[in-house]
Amino acid sequence: MAKRIVIIGGVAAGPKAACRLKRLMPDAEVTVIDQDTIISYGGCGIPYYVSGDVSDEKELRSTSFHMLRDENFFDKAKGVKTLTATRALAIDRKKKTVQLEDLKTGKRQDIEYDTLMLATGSTPVVPPIPGVDAQGVFTVSDMHKAIAIKDMIAKGKVSKAAVIGGGAIGIEMAEALTDLWGIETALIEFQSQLLPRIIDWPLATMLAKHLRDHNVAVHLGESAEEIIVKDGKVVAVRTGKRTVEADMVIMAVGVRPRSELARNAGLLVSANGGIVVNERMQTSDPDIYAAGDCVDIMHLVSGKRFVAPFGSMANREGRVAADNMAGIPSVFKGGVGSFIVKAFEMSLGSVGLSLQAARAEGFAAEFSLSSPIDRAHFFPGHDILILELIFDKRSRKVLGLQGIGPVNDALSARIDTAAVAIAAGATIDDFANIEMAYSPPFSPAIDPINAAAYIADNLCDNRMRQISIEDFYSFMANPSSHPDWQVLDVRHKNEAAPFVERFGAALWHSLPYEQMRDRYAELPTDKKFIVFCNAGSRSFEVQIFLDYAGVKSSTVLPGGFNVINRIGADWLPVS
Amino acid sequence: MAKRIVIIGGVAAGPKAACRLKRLMPDAEVTVIDQDTIISYGGCGIPYYVSGDVSDEKELRSTSFHMLRDENFFDKAKGVKTLTATRALAIDRKKKTVQLEDLKTGKRQDIEYDTLMLATGSTPVVPPIPGVDAQGVFTVSDMHKAIAIKDMIAKGKVSKAAVIGGGAIGIEMAEALTDLWGIETALIEFQSQLLPRIIDWPLATMLAKHLRDHNVAVHLGESAEEIIVKDGKVVAVRTGKRTVEADMVIMAVGVRPRSELARNAGLLVSANGGIVVNERMQTSDPDIYAAGDCVDIMHLVSGKRFVAPFGSMANREGRVAADNMAGIPSVFKGGVGSFIVKAFEMSLGSVGLSLQAARAEGFAAEFSLSSPIDRAHFFPGHDILILELIFDKRSRKVLGLQGIGPVNDALSARIDTAAVAIAAGATIDDFANIEMAYSPPFSPAIDPINAAAYIADNLCDNRMRQISIEDFYSFMANPSSHPDWQVLDVRHKNEAAPFVERFGAALWHSLPYEQMRDRYAELPTDKKFIVFCNAGSRSFEVQIFLDYAGVKSSTVLPGGFNVINRIGADWLPVS
Repeated sequence: MAKRIVIIGGVAAGPKAACRLKRLMPDAEVTVIDQDTIISYGGCGIPYYVSGDVSDEKELRSTSFHMLRDENFFDKAKGVKTLTATRALAIDRKKKTVQLEDLKTGKRQDIEYDTLMLATGSTPVVPPIPGVDAQGVFTVSDMHKAIAIKDMIAKGKVSKAAVIGGGAIGIEMAEALTDLWGIETALIEFQSQLLPRIIDWPLATMLAKHLRDHNVAVHLGESAEEIIVKDGKVVAVRTGKRTVEADMVIMAVGVRPRSELARNAGLLVSANGGIVVNERMQTSDPDIYAAGDCVDIMHLVSGKRFVAPFGSMANREGRVAADNMAGIPSVFKGGVGSFIVKAFEMSLGSVGLSLQAARAEGFAAEFSLSSPIDRAHFFPGHDILILELIFDKRSRKVLGLQGIGPVNDALSARIDTAAVAIAAGATIDDFANIEMAYSPPFSPAIDPINAAAYIADNLCDNRMRQISIEDFYSFMANPSSHPDWQVLDVRHKNEAAPFVERFGAALWHSLPYEQMRDRYAELPTDKKFIVFCNAGSRSFEVQIFLDYAGVKSSTVLPGGFNVINRIGADWLPVS
Repeated sequence: MAKRIVIIGGVAAGPKAACRLKRLMPDAEVTVIDQDTIISYGGCGIPYYVSGDVSDEKELRSTSFHMLRDENFFDKAKGVKTLTATRALAIDRKKKTVQLEDLKTGKRQDIEYDTLMLATGSTPVVPPIPGVDAQGVFTVSDMHKAIAIKDMIAKGKVSKAAVIGGGAIGIEMAEALTDLWGIETALIEFQSQLLPRIIDWPLATMLAKHLRDHNVAVHLGESAEEIIVKDGKVVAVRTGKRTVEADMVIMAVGVRPRSELARNAGLLVSANGGIVVNERMQTSDPDIYAAGDCVDIMHLVSGKRFVAPFGSMANREGRVAADNMAGIPSVFKGGVGSFIVKAFEMSLGSVGLSLQAARAEGFAAEFSLSSPIDRAHFFPGHDILILELIFDKRSRKVLGLQGIGPVNDALSARIDTAAVAIAAGATIDDFANIEMAYSPPFSPAIDPINAAAYIADNLCDNRMRQISIEDFYSFMANPSSHPDWQVLDVRHKNEAAPFVERFGAALWHSLPYEQMRDRYAELPTDKKFIVFCNAGSRSFEVQIFLDYAGVKSSTVLPGGFNVINRIGADWLPVS
């Protein structure tokens, strides 16, 4: 008899595994169950459907060769049976059946399986605040909601919107609403920065500034306490600090694994809510596999289990699950959390651990912050990247990389490369010699990823001493807090001039880099210098020289002007 | 006494090591010797200076903060002494001196060293054919030649040009001459394809077509036998097959390590002409280091020594050499040959071994050729990549990756990522799970690099059988050679129609993918099918199904129409 494989969940991991299974075992009987009528869609594309970049929702559920991935497609093209509008109510592991409910008729029936796969995905977290059920409040969790959101906007019913949650979806939705539709949009994040735990304060603050520069009102450290409703419709969101008018509210505070079915069937579920699987994507029941947003996987840096709700991860996990269901030993070792998001003219990415997360995990974590150019500086169209490399000072292992760049693939090239290296346990010395393909239109001769490792090496070996960006901002906000500190601006006179003019020479001392060896004796002897240039590299060289010259009291502002210009400050003479 | 370090060569590895040394040992006396007056320039930028993308040659030798890297800069900013227009004639290893000649005065003197570094670079290979010394014949080996080339063009003296050598420099120069200046340019390559040994025939042929589509006359398998000279000036190049008129000839047939000085001093030099160094960049004399184009390094896939004349490599090697000269144990393990080049609207890259090279090295090498989309197919502005993954069928190790893409960083992102993985000895299973950062504006949910590994996995496990592109072209050029073969076009009827019309249904059979399960019985029983779609993935699914249905005689055309459309053919109904 043909092997009967039942897969619960028809969005990403489920269909991927189903199709792979039919290729590995063409005689298997593969059935995909989904409670929705729309299946196999690119949920990550929803913000681009809302923005109008994608004009028709069907594009999100079509193949690259323009066929709609509906029940008929899976039947005819793939030989996979789909039961949509069908809910899996319970698993009977002894009888090896799943109880199903036809959502159109209410009729219940059991389906038998030889092997079962759970690809039940995730559920949006909806905070229990008054008004969340009002008309105009949406999560971005499925195509129906996406269609409803776009429909409401397209009908001109939205002039103001609030997005609750400063994660990737919140950021993408804020851009979608603002950019094409011109909706006055507020982004509300409970934590004190955007993308908490994913990136650190300097880059998060650059992102917030960029969003604000593009007319998104970013409110950090504010919790949505109530959604104010009038005639059943949302009219505003009240935080602890303000009331934000809104015709539409997007709830994007995160997702949690949909693991109730597994839990009720007695399968192991971890503390983070993800179904526990081994490297073969097998649950605690050897006849039941799981993949996608509903599972938790190993974080290859922290060594802890985590949830990685990405469509890409779901596809890779789904394939491994299918292999093993078909008897091919295939392993999924875990992940390093590769992440990238577009925000207007900015790309922001990360992989591994942030500095904050690394320190919380007990690493002797330090950071190298740099602002290199993404291709040869003489090549037209080059742009600046901001890269923060996180490393362990004891083991010299690289723990993470995060960055900001323009909207091209320059940043993702470095994030992807770092993902492989970090997963392999690379040290900063390995990073220093990563062999990036070099040609002026694509990269500089000293690649940003190599340069970041060079800085890390200098920090590890205590050749370089740096001030944290946070400490520099505290100082600039209140220079009298450290009357013995002085900024030593080693840029060109013309670049330093507006700063010297604003702050006075006692606080902001200009002495160009190339004159240092001849003129360092002019420097005041009672100051601790914060050496300042455009990208940080000249500052480091000056620090080395000052140390050699016996002027030991200096720290480097990492990344220099390129960093603070992107973070922004009211004390900046230029913006 | 301060340690005296002498570095011979002032372009890339030399200045990098010199500056690093001054940071590691600020009291060292570091002297850089160069026979030229122009030092520390980005030689890889020369084609872009000639094309006009870079307007002033000084940009190629300036820092990113716009300071000219001349003798004064190295002295004032870096504390490095430079002796330009000075040739190193001989090394006396016993006395630890280098004999120098001042090229302006002819005066000779010895310079003493405690540690010596050779960064003597490479010399362009000039074939010994009549006329190579004529006016108008140039190599692209230094800034003086670059300036002379651009000067001659800018003065309107060049209406026709010939570039000899189809490597990266030849390709870049052909673009530079054609694109902005509108010079009628021929590119002459002795081998039967462009970029021999770096990429395989399918991608090389796509590149040749792209160059021809941009008005470069590409002549393959033709050797320049004579440069025809009139009144001392070049007027044409004669190959075995034709005479190409030319006011200018660019010689770009390759470079060889400049290792005579080392060889004459009794240092070990390998068969490929590179100075032999260990992982610390130390030559056979422990007091002499070497780095850059003049050394040979370990190829991490073949295990053989090779020469990698890239500015990026020189910088990384130079830093490792400097570390070791300063007593910091630092290693440079070798390279995998990461490579990228721009050619008009195309990027072409590779890393590791080509299929041909891998087979020559004795690997059981096979290839997966695919034509994926570089970002989510629903995201505006996506484009097609062509990727060829080379792997060993026995060990499942990935040996190389080569690709073609648009001029963005989509291809380099995959080449760079593969470089790290290949250097780490990754298998196709590792490649299948490389965690590329996913978001629709940057990548598809199933990344091209993962998809390439999926195909390799199916080939390794004999689930997929493919025809080589070469064999397919032979067949199409002469269908009667295999009267039992038939192309089974599983694309949409409308896509197949012009092919069926041109070739007739006996050769080109149309049966759409999604109808296969219902209609396969219609297929002729006496044919061997070459299954054909746009990207290869539907063809593979059809092959699996036909095998299951008992129709075992099929092969997949890898990469499908996307591949042959880029290779081109006179039998193609559309171009």
